Amino acid sequence: MKRLLLISTLLLFFACQKSVNMQQVESPDGTLSLTFRLNEGAPEYEVARFNRTIINPSKLGFVLKEADSLTSFRVTNSALTSFDETWTQVWGEKKEIRNHYNELRVQLQEINRPRRKMTVVFRLFDDGLGFRYELPEQPNLATFDIMDELTEFNLADDATAWWIPAYGWNRYEYLYQATKTSELDTVHTPVTFETPNGLFLSIHEAALTDYASMTLRNIGGTALKADLVPWSDGVRVKAQTPMVTPWRTIQIADDAGGLITSCLILNLNEPNKLEDTSWIKPAKYVGIWWDMHLNTATWGSGPMHGATTERTMRYIDFAAKYGFAGVLVEGWNIGWDGDWVKYGDGFQFTAPYPDFDIEKVTRYAAEKGVQLIGHNETGAAVLNYEKQLQDAFQFYEKLGVHVVKTGYVGNDPSIKRIDEKGEEQWEWHHGQFMVRHYRKVIEEAARHNIMLDVHEPIKDTGIRRTYPNMMTREGARGQEYHAWDPDGGNPPDHETILPFTRLLAGPMDFTPGIFDLLFDRARPNNRVNTTLAKQLALYVVLYSPLHMAADLPENYEANRKPFQFILDVPTDWQDTRVLHARIGDYVTIVRQDRHSDDWYLGSVTDENGRNLQTTLSFLEPNLRYVAEIYRDGADADWQANPYSIEIIEMLVTQNSNLTLRLAPGGGQAIRFRKASEADVQRLSR
Amino acid sequence: MKRLLLISTLLLFFACQKSVNMQQVESPDGTLSLTFRLNEGAPEYEVARFNRTIINPSKLGFVLKEADSLTSFRVTNSALTSFDETWTQVWGEKKEIRNHYNELRVQLQEINRPRRKMTVVFRLFDDGLGFRYELPEQPNLATFDIMDELTEFNLADDATAWWIPAYGWNRYEYLYQATKTSELDTVHTPVTFETPNGLFLSIHEAALTDYASMTLRNIGGTALKADLVPWSDGVRVKAQTPMVTPWRTIQIADDAGGLITSCLILNLNEPNKLEDTSWIKPAKYVGIWWDMHLNTATWGSGPMHGATTERTMRYIDFAAKYGFAGVLVEGWNIGWDGDWVKYGDGFQFTAPYPDFDIEKVTRYAAEKGVQLIGHNETGAAVLNYEKQLQDAFQFYEKLGVHVVKTGYVGNDPSIKRIDEKGEEQWEWHHGQFMVRHYRKVIEEAARHNIMLDVHEPIKDTGIRRTYPNMMTREGARGQEYHAWDPDGGNPPDHETILPFTRLLAGPMDFTPGIFDLLFDRARPNNRVNTTLAKQLALYVVLYSPLHMAADLPENYEANRKPFQFILDVPTDWQDTRVLHARIGDYVTIVRQDRHSDDWYLGSVTDENGRNLQTTLSFLEPNLRYVAEIYRDGADADWQANPYSIEIIEMLVTQNSNLTLRLAPGGGQAIRFRKASEADVQRLSR
Repeated sequence: MKRLLLISTLLLFFACQKSVNMQQVESPDGTLSLTFRLNEGAPEYEVARFNRTIINPSKLGFVLKEADSLTSFRVTNSALTSFDETWTQVWGEKKEIRNHYNELRVQLQEINRPRRKMTVVFRLFDDGLGFRYELPEQPNLATFDIMDELTEFNLADDATAWWIPAYGWNRYEYLYQATKTSELDTVHTPVTFETPNGLFLSIHEAALTDYASMTLRNIGGTALKADLVPWSDGVRVKAQTPMVTPWRTIQIADDAGGLITSCLILNLNEPNKLEDTSWIKPAKYVGIWWDMHLNTATWGSGPMHGATTERTMRYIDFAAKYGFAGVLVEGWNIGWDGDWVKYGDGFQFTAPYPDFDIEKVTRYAAEKGVQLIGHNETGAAVLNYEKQLQDAFQFYEKLGVHVVKTGYVGNDPSIKRIDEKGEEQWEWHHGQFMVRHYRKVIEEAARHNIMLDVHEPIKDTGIRRTYPNMMTREGARGQEYHAWDPDGGNPPDHETILPFTRLLAGPMDFTPGIFDLLFDRARPNNRVNTTLAKQLALYVVLYSPLHMAADLPENYEANRKPFQFILDVPTDWQDTRVLHARIGDYVTIVRQDRHSDDWYLGSVTDENGRNLQTTLSFLEPNLRYVAEIYRDGADADWQANPYSIEIIEMLVTQNSNLTLRLAPGGGQAIRFRKASEADVQRLSR
Repeated sequence: MKRLLLISTLLLFFACQKSVNMQQVESPDGTLSLTFRLNEGAPEYEVARFNRTIINPSKLGFVLKEADSLTSFRVTNSALTSFDETWTQVWGEKKEIRNHYNELRVQLQEINRPRRKMTVVFRLFDDGLGFRYELPEQPNLATFDIMDELTEFNLADDATAWWIPAYGWNRYEYLYQATKTSELDTVHTPVTFETPNGLFLSIHEAALTDYASMTLRNIGGTALKADLVPWSDGVRVKAQTPMVTPWRTIQIADDAGGLITSCLILNLNEPNKLEDTSWIKPAKYVGIWWDMHLNTATWGSGPMHGATTERTMRYIDFAAKYGFAGVLVEGWNIGWDGDWVKYGDGFQFTAPYPDFDIEKVTRYAAEKGVQLIGHNETGAAVLNYEKQLQDAFQFYEKLGVHVVKTGYVGNDPSIKRIDEKGEEQWEWHHGQFMVRHYRKVIEEAARHNIMLDVHEPIKDTGIRRTYPNMMTREGARGQEYHAWDPDGGNPPDHETILPFTRLLAGPMDFTPGIFDLLFDRARPNNRVNTTLAKQLALYVVLYSPLHMAADLPENYEANRKPFQFILDVPTDWQDTRVLHARIGDYVTIVRQDRHSDDWYLGSVTDENGRNLQTTLSFLEPNLRYVAEIYRDGADADWQANPYSIEIIEMLVTQNSNLTLRLAPGGGQAIRFRKASEADVQRLSR
């Protein structure tokens, strides 16, 4: 069947090429098809699904500096190939990933002098497509500046788009908005669309390694165009051949859940480059962090300094008692005093504050079977960080620190660079300068067996496949907005949008698990805008290989029963499925533990209560499971009664039906474990 | 748990009543709550779900003729009760139905003279609510005319509404439109809503037996008001105490599929009144019908007369050969010649045309184990029909005819009535005059062991529970629009809307199964706007206890393979579940045969192709089933290639995952039957 399909595709391809300078490629299941053609020499592509156009003819090409645009070509060669392999993730939402696509490779050469060459590669998957440009080594194109990338996504339908603005000072930390595509301005990716016909699409990019981040600008109607984030000098990308661009990706699914389970972004990244990955371990951690957001401790030195030896040792005790692998300590090193957001050059990454005995702390941690998680806030002063990078990572490695959380707080464009003339320039977090930096840190970290958790990051484009020490990152509004946002924090629908937008890019360090939801003593005008059960559900709904239990130890000790779910929930999965999906309203995800037979369910809703029906068809047949259910109490309500939670156990099988009752702003978390004979006895009574 | 809930509700109720003349009742699961109150004497209700108002305060009451309005009251008594029973349907979508509600009964008396009494009864189910007015026998209210019912449905959200217009000449036969609730004019029920928050509601009525049909008029913003269909003299309802109104119903679900599986309408009807139901048998039938729509035969006499003895005997042979229970014959009786739509008084219901020997035909049918299905087109001349009704049904009963299809073709308001002064008046199909007529025919039919299939009917409000000989009805645009509609027939999304609107009321005789989709020889400018596979899927998607195989026998003989699905599919079900639901886009329904272990799946899409993922968790565990799959071919498309179909068998279990590939305008039908050892051998190869 597969063979037949390929042959028929090839026939079609040759037939078309002959007559009209047009190439076509279909997805393996034949559902999706892409047409490449030259329109008076200008390359363009078009995408159809079930024979209906979903991307109208859309331009391809570049504008270069000091040279004509790369826009007028003839086809010199083209090739159609098929690929199908299944690879194993080092860690992730799913262990085995099938990478199955048909590829169309079109080699182009300029019609006129200097006859430069460019190749466009399209990969059609059953769940979407990716394409990229390749500029081979050639006499007339060596070193060059890209002033504009002409790539368009000319959407056929005026869909509802979920988006955040592209050039805001606050990087990726905005609330998602839903508007018509035709009403967009310039937005970050992933941007996710729901068409009036019920088709779901998400545009993003894969393997962004030495290029500018692609944002999308509305150029009229429902046509979007790549808008590469510029350097301070206006150049978008400084390049030399041979080069390949990141993949431009369009994920496509008939239901919103299909976007979540798509592995297209990972499949378009290079395979793992690390030979030894035995030191890379997904884990849960606690840390000295939330206190600072509540203003009950400080990053900087002084009487309220959070990162003291003594406090850290208490956290280590807590972590050891409950089996957390790591203890994050923020504010341990010199540089936090003064306005570090503006003047990050003061950060020293190997110099602890006097009240933080890092040798003692790491020794104590090791004795307890716990690891310190290093923290490198740079204040966006990356030159300062790069100077110290190697020393810092050597220092941590020696101390047995295998996870570093980095930070790049700074109002965009706020990255200081010294240009060729020795002058200071200010770059964006998501321009090429920083893409290079983030990549450099990953590679340096890998050399020192260090896993990374990057805050204020470049957006995720799947680099974790190539460097699986790149664990998780921020790049969206996380839990801390609840602590201090003057506008009231994240509204209850925030976490029902993230899985369909930000999380399509990759894992997020959201830092869930706040139990003291109102923290009246600390900040009476702020609160967490969820129920308690929803905080638990987020551990399943928002994937991260490093998940924090973000609240203070005393709040967990005082709520031992709900805390059990955080202790149980894994951070590395065999499989992931989506049971309910409605963007901005609710989502239910189940995941199978990679290291046991347990399944975990997380379901969250927006400000509206819901009764969601589900079967448990994901469980193994013929077995009884104990469902350990953490659900909103009958009277729970994120505004009026957020703490109301019911924790019950019941016997279930694959054939059980459950109604997930989610309170307004609520959620539900369930662990399914195989029932012992004793469980059956106890729960059958 | 249940007991506790009731007690707490009672406490709440008494607490509230005491202070503010307000009563409350909750659904059994506590999700839904209704508040009744007197607002300066005027009764009103309000509905909340998960503590969020979904129906804002909405008026209740009546305007009477020659008397003050029933609008200013005090509460004299109120009672809260709970009810929970499971009853068995004689036939239907589901065998066992749970009727579980909490009831609030509020007795009211006018504050001022003549101090008339009125009771409002609310029933809160987990899947919605119903309420009705009861006017007890009382000295100051005997015979009276209702000039207006004040009932409002003041929707909290401006939802998307799927509706058809209320007072069109073409009765219920319109394409559903989707607009904002705030843009509605006056609409029929069921009218179905999807709120921006993802809540689904449908407003309708139950047990409409001697009252005017309720339509809904927009009275500003998102507030809808009952607009009872008037008599020709302007009176809405001619009544006498004691009386009860129909139930006003609001079905509510978190997903659109939940509306389909709700049994609220049936639960609000009276239990079965027929002692012997052994003669009531869901069935499939063929008939002399499609030919007339194609203009290849005529209802009236002449050379092309369809209903001849000889042709009927051929249909009987065909039915007997393939196991169809019935043969419908239209145009068999005198009255069809001339303009019968205007002058229906000529119809004679016991007088066959000379070329139709009804004695011979029914005798031949009986020999072959087949029954004739009687046909009574009235041309909307109901007085003529009522005069002959008893004789007609006696005649059919004697001939062994146990199903009669009635028809009331006529442009509304077109029902002739003779008023008290002996003058002709013209009534609506859905006014009280006709409600009474339709009910009279059901009762008369029951006396003669006759099942009914009513075309141009009053809308279904669940009377089949009380009179299970009321089998199915039309009341929407059926298949025949494809034959002759000058505007091109039903668009591909029509059948993806019907299950969420018209079919919520009850079964529909859509007459699916046209195989000769283009019928170029007959009517080259018309066609069926589906693929072949979608025609099969409709047998599952659109429930009817009497389902027609509507095409000509020769088209089935020539397509024996797809025809097999029509032969296999049952018309009476043990259970029904909805796997995918998006109103106007697609729907997948599975149903379990009531008389075997088979399951059947039907999935249909609009003009867009889809890949819908599904598990088969509805199947029994630990068994292998043969899935007999009838699906769109890889190149199928309702416009370009409607006949392309793939019919395959495969072994599946409860743990199998299927991708339902639906072509544009397509569908898929599957029979799941338990696999024999031979099946396993054959299909494992």
